[in-house]
Amino acid sequence: MIHKALKRIAILISAALTMGNLMAQELKTLTLDDLLPGGETYRFAENIYGLQWWGDVLVKPEIDRMVTVDLKNGKETELLTIEQVSALLKKNNLDANVPTLQNVQLLWPGKTQMLIRTRTGFYVLDWKSESVVAKQEMPRGATNADFSKEGYNIAYTIKNNLFVNGKQLTDEPEGIVVGQSVHRNEFGINKGTFWSPKGNLLAFYRMDESMVTEYPLVDIDARIAELTPIRYPMAGMTSHKVTVGVYEVKSGKTIYLDAGDPTDRYFTNISWAPDEKSIWLVELNRDQNHAKLCQYDAQTGKLMGVFYEEEHPKYVEPENPIVFLPWDQNKFIYQSERDGFNHLYLMDTQTSVYPEKHSIGSSTYKESFKTIQLTKGNWLVQDILGFNESKKEIIYASTEVSPLQTNIYKVNVKTGVKTTLNDNEGVHRAQVSASGSYLFDSYATPSIARKIDVYDTTGKGLAKAINLLTAEDPLKDFALPQIEMGTIKAADGVTDLYYRIIKPINFDANKKYPAVTYVYGGPHAQNISASIRYGARAWELYMASKGYVMFCLDNRGSENRGLVFEQATFRHLGVEETKDQRKGAEFLMNLPYVDKTRMGVHGWSFGGHMTTSMMLRLNDVYQVGVAGGPVIDWQWYEVMYGERYMDTPQTNPEGYAETNLRSLASNLKGHLLMVHGYQDGTCVPQHTLGFIKACVDAKVQPDLFLYPGHQHGVSGKDAVHLYEKMTQYFEDNL
Amino acid sequence: MIHKALKRIAILISAALTMGNLMAQELKTLTLDDLLPGGETYRFAENIYGLQWWGDVLVKPEIDRMVTVDLKNGKETELLTIEQVSALLKKNNLDANVPTLQNVQLLWPGKTQMLIRTRTGFYVLDWKSESVVAKQEMPRGATNADFSKEGYNIAYTIKNNLFVNGKQLTDEPEGIVVGQSVHRNEFGINKGTFWSPKGNLLAFYRMDESMVTEYPLVDIDARIAELTPIRYPMAGMTSHKVTVGVYEVKSGKTIYLDAGDPTDRYFTNISWAPDEKSIWLVELNRDQNHAKLCQYDAQTGKLMGVFYEEEHPKYVEPENPIVFLPWDQNKFIYQSERDGFNHLYLMDTQTSVYPEKHSIGSSTYKESFKTIQLTKGNWLVQDILGFNESKKEIIYASTEVSPLQTNIYKVNVKTGVKTTLNDNEGVHRAQVSASGSYLFDSYATPSIARKIDVYDTTGKGLAKAINLLTAEDPLKDFALPQIEMGTIKAADGVTDLYYRIIKPINFDANKKYPAVTYVYGGPHAQNISASIRYGARAWELYMASKGYVMFCLDNRGSENRGLVFEQATFRHLGVEETKDQRKGAEFLMNLPYVDKTRMGVHGWSFGGHMTTSMMLRLNDVYQVGVAGGPVIDWQWYEVMYGERYMDTPQTNPEGYAETNLRSLASNLKGHLLMVHGYQDGTCVPQHTLGFIKACVDAKVQPDLFLYPGHQHGVSGKDAVHLYEKMTQYFEDNL
Repeated sequence: MIHKALKRIAILISAALTMGNLMAQELKTLTLDDLLPGGETYRFAENIYGLQWWGDVLVKPEIDRMVTVDLKNGKETELLTIEQVSALLKKNNLDANVPTLQNVQLLWPGKTQMLIRTRTGFYVLDWKSESVVAKQEMPRGATNADFSKEGYNIAYTIKNNLFVNGKQLTDEPEGIVVGQSVHRNEFGINKGTFWSPKGNLLAFYRMDESMVTEYPLVDIDARIAELTPIRYPMAGMTSHKVTVGVYEVKSGKTIYLDAGDPTDRYFTNISWAPDEKSIWLVELNRDQNHAKLCQYDAQTGKLMGVFYEEEHPKYVEPENPIVFLPWDQNKFIYQSERDGFNHLYLMDTQTSVYPEKHSIGSSTYKESFKTIQLTKGNWLVQDILGFNESKKEIIYASTEVSPLQTNIYKVNVKTGVKTTLNDNEGVHRAQVSASGSYLFDSYATPSIARKIDVYDTTGKGLAKAINLLTAEDPLKDFALPQIEMGTIKAADGVTDLYYRIIKPINFDANKKYPAVTYVYGGPHAQNISASIRYGARAWELYMASKGYVMFCLDNRGSENRGLVFEQATFRHLGVEETKDQRKGAEFLMNLPYVDKTRMGVHGWSFGGHMTTSMMLRLNDVYQVGVAGGPVIDWQWYEVMYGERYMDTPQTNPEGYAETNLRSLASNLKGHLLMVHGYQDGTCVPQHTLGFIKACVDAKVQPDLFLYPGHQHGVSGKDAVHLYEKMTQYFEDNL
Repeated sequence: MIHKALKRIAILISAALTMGNLMAQELKTLTLDDLLPGGETYRFAENIYGLQWWGDVLVKPEIDRMVTVDLKNGKETELLTIEQVSALLKKNNLDANVPTLQNVQLLWPGKTQMLIRTRTGFYVLDWKSESVVAKQEMPRGATNADFSKEGYNIAYTIKNNLFVNGKQLTDEPEGIVVGQSVHRNEFGINKGTFWSPKGNLLAFYRMDESMVTEYPLVDIDARIAELTPIRYPMAGMTSHKVTVGVYEVKSGKTIYLDAGDPTDRYFTNISWAPDEKSIWLVELNRDQNHAKLCQYDAQTGKLMGVFYEEEHPKYVEPENPIVFLPWDQNKFIYQSERDGFNHLYLMDTQTSVYPEKHSIGSSTYKESFKTIQLTKGNWLVQDILGFNESKKEIIYASTEVSPLQTNIYKVNVKTGVKTTLNDNEGVHRAQVSASGSYLFDSYATPSIARKIDVYDTTGKGLAKAINLLTAEDPLKDFALPQIEMGTIKAADGVTDLYYRIIKPINFDANKKYPAVTYVYGGPHAQNISASIRYGARAWELYMASKGYVMFCLDNRGSENRGLVFEQATFRHLGVEETKDQRKGAEFLMNLPYVDKTRMGVHGWSFGGHMTTSMMLRLNDVYQVGVAGGPVIDWQWYEVMYGERYMDTPQTNPEGYAETNLRSLASNLKGHLLMVHGYQDGTCVPQHTLGFIKACVDAKVQPDLFLYPGHQHGVSGKDAVHLYEKMTQYFEDNL
């Protein structure tokens, strides 16, 4: 069901764009250089870079000065100038170059300390005393820098080893990586170092991947092509082993958590107890159907207890570290999808309950603490944004208004009262001030590229204070197409699926147009949203300018619709999704202005899998496809992501066989261009090259293009080349 | 200038094919499956497999029997049956399976010994005494088998080591290869073991390539893509080091020739002295401009002398081991291009002359023996076929009639009188009987697929005895195009170049047809010959059946035209060749039936280089090209071939820069499909992938296809896929 507000916006957008079309003669025609970030004439939507809270003071950096903004009237007061900063650096004999204040961060409310990060280090300067508070320099080659403002300490890595404050902590051989993200960035992991709340201790990941088979990527840009192998554990194969270390800055000692044999286990969602005495993490078995919330002693490494367990016959996917309440170090928030949607659960460590097995839906769980579910409903919490300590409120983002939207709410921990903090439109991102009384909110709606407002969160309901920015549409000078959204029923006949349709520029309802579907279709992504132009991608606009109807459908398995919707695809990825896309195609082919004999499809990654699947399984529908960086055979995808949805080739042979697109190669009837980044370490080139071989064996004729030097996507200036190639392929063949 | 005989044949062919066209309704249309050896309906031209001389007795094996052929009347007499052979094997408890007698070789004139080679070994059986004369078995994995009938010894290799009669001679680590061909099969080298004339000693190559950088080929057909690296010395880079060993069977001892430091030296054209006491070889410097004929003591390995030296400011290319006269062990024949064409020189080891430096053309040479030039003229000797000991004649093949032909001649060593032995038509290959009195000659002409005649060489001039086979055209049931040949002037305005033109099937002189050039253009290859259909390739016939004019021109640099013609391209390969091809294009575009706006080009390997060159340098001429396995940048090609023609990147930077097609990528205007075997170890995939990257950088749009599992060419059943892809590319774009 489409939310009413969205429907209203859809109509407004259409109207606005129809007006746009009336003036089309005066408007410019889109080019790929205008539309793509790597293009020569691309313009980002206006933004305020470096906007930040300094306690409850809003600080807005500009290139050559920094101002505070009065929250009552928006009045700006100069705080600092770039000349001051330069003089300060010079006075202290610091050889750092600060070309803009937009990257400068104010560290502590009330204190005049700023953090300057340059290529060579981190500098904390006091602009009042004109002195250097802290200086942490990094040698060449240092990366993954993690600065703790609490202790002014710095952690970083050089190659595969970890350093703190210039001291090398580990001296591991190739094959063991320390201080970097592990488990291929799954389970919400995106870094490898975790400073304790007071900055005295550093928890870090150590990953032994020496037992993982190397995938032979080749760099052809060398004098003689060079092997640049990556450790890539493929589904069902031997995987890496992760342990967690704890380094104490003062003593210089390192211990490792005593978690037992790490074989086939995932250690995720690391967080520190507020007192720094323990570390909490979520441990997951390789089958990913059993999560355990564990507490470890940070000094001894001993397990202190397993306080929550969750199981699901398909999988559980913990992605959020626990967060302690600022006003009560004994209570934390755990996020779980156990009732079918991601919600907030308050757990009290000072309580103890017998860990009985409970079940809800297909999930079962055991709680050792008294737990209160703070949010509930057929929508999901997306992020905890902050707290209001005095009012005991959690400020968070959720999809409560619509699965296409992200809106800001607060919930009172004591009363359970939930309040919406902004208009029920668009996709919002907010940063909360220190006290939680204010936030600034950067958001987009289908008709607004970016707007930044400052709110007072303490009033009842909506409390808009100031508008800091309303960005104009960077494409305002161009002829733009009509964009509409709606829902159709999934192949199960029950579930609503959201679609977006873009009509060709200068649309004539009496004409028949070729139609191209853009598809992703995999988990953790949603293509239709209440953001600018309903989330339409640049290339869709370009194709509309070339006379194509562009279509997109978020099939079952995609993001923000809850667990049942996502897990419909379990153990046979691509199959249900393709059935849903057939429903989308049928809808499209029934539109009076669509030429149903001219149907195309394009997608990348999971969308490349879907494109290939649709060209092979729906070969009565699609004539032309471009599949980029596709998964072809799930046995060639990595363990963490792949086995979550597919189990292993050993335990799910029929699923792997059913979804292996090589075995469907002989179904190819239309024109299918396979594109792959030759340095793709996410979805390795074996997928595309293996499919090509299968097609040769099956005596069918796909097309191929590779981008040497590019990884899992073609970015930068070469994106223009890619989209030109793709466009030309549709122009030539559809 | 075209030889008159060829002109006459050209007219006959045209007439025959015109008649063919009149009957076109009854004739079948060509398919790729009919035309390509990997195709399901391909038929080879009829042949007599295993035909051989048994002394002066002609023996014709069939599947189930072997007959002798009376040379006077052609009458066949049964010699052996397969039942006899099977009974013989059984009687002697040999577990060998002999499904056909076509692979059986009779070893010694007058003796009833036959050699049977199976997968597991070599067996010499006497069918009269019904006994086993010799049995040499090989373990699994043995390859490069070399059997000496003189000593009944066998040499073979397993992996990188050499074995003789079951004994392992060497135990070298990976990176050192023994008993196999070296120097990447250049300089006429095609094997690594050389039995002495009496079978007592084995000379062999040992190649240390441990210092050569590995090129990372990748096999994507494995569970996880696997590295399958090859040692590939690229132009200007560190190359391998070759030495020559000598193994004595009796003593079991091995010595190595004491040739000094092998760095940057080539050891080629190994031959044994008839008395087995010494080994002769030609040594060449890395710059390939100075060849030395050296004799080494086979017992001590010491250098006995350097007896001939030849230099050329561009290069010398010795490709033929010396051959001793059967009737005089002190005289041998050396082949040299020093006067501009490959000719026979008789050297007398019993003489000694002061090695003065002589020059002829650009060549200089020093002879230590008295030398007589046996053949001379603006044509070249292609092969020594045999000797007539009693008459002191050498029987050889040459291009004397025409550069497009190979004909058989004899020259009397004493009198110098030269006699032609067959009709002045076609391309002949002959095997000479033991006495040299007879030969059988398998040949093709533009209108004959294969004919096998037996000649008496002793009469004056032509002495045809019997016709053993006249194969019918395997394409006789198909509608075939008109094929013509002729000459045009090269870009130098002087040199005649041969072309072949094929008109579309059902040609209509009033129509305009698209024209596609097939090109190779590199050294050591000639595309237009007096063989069946003037050497037209299967795909040319197919394209003619699709309505294309097909054209081919042997530009300067190609085979069989002598040294000046070949060396016109020195140090800037592809440049002069492309200028010549422009002349070809101009000729073609002036034909009334050619649509000059629809010109295409295709070639593989050097022809892939030429195709790319023509698409970039002649982008005003060609709209569509398909370049297969191309050289793109000569710095990525190997040392032996590449440096002969290009010198090194260090000594010829301007030549390498001029011929690097990556730097011309921005010239691309038309449709260019790059195709490469992904396992290509001859012209590594870096060429095509590097060109693709250059095109992306230059913002131009080539197309790409790779054949995983295929090397420097796509053979077997997949050839049909390749030619279908190529044909479709021209059909879609030209």
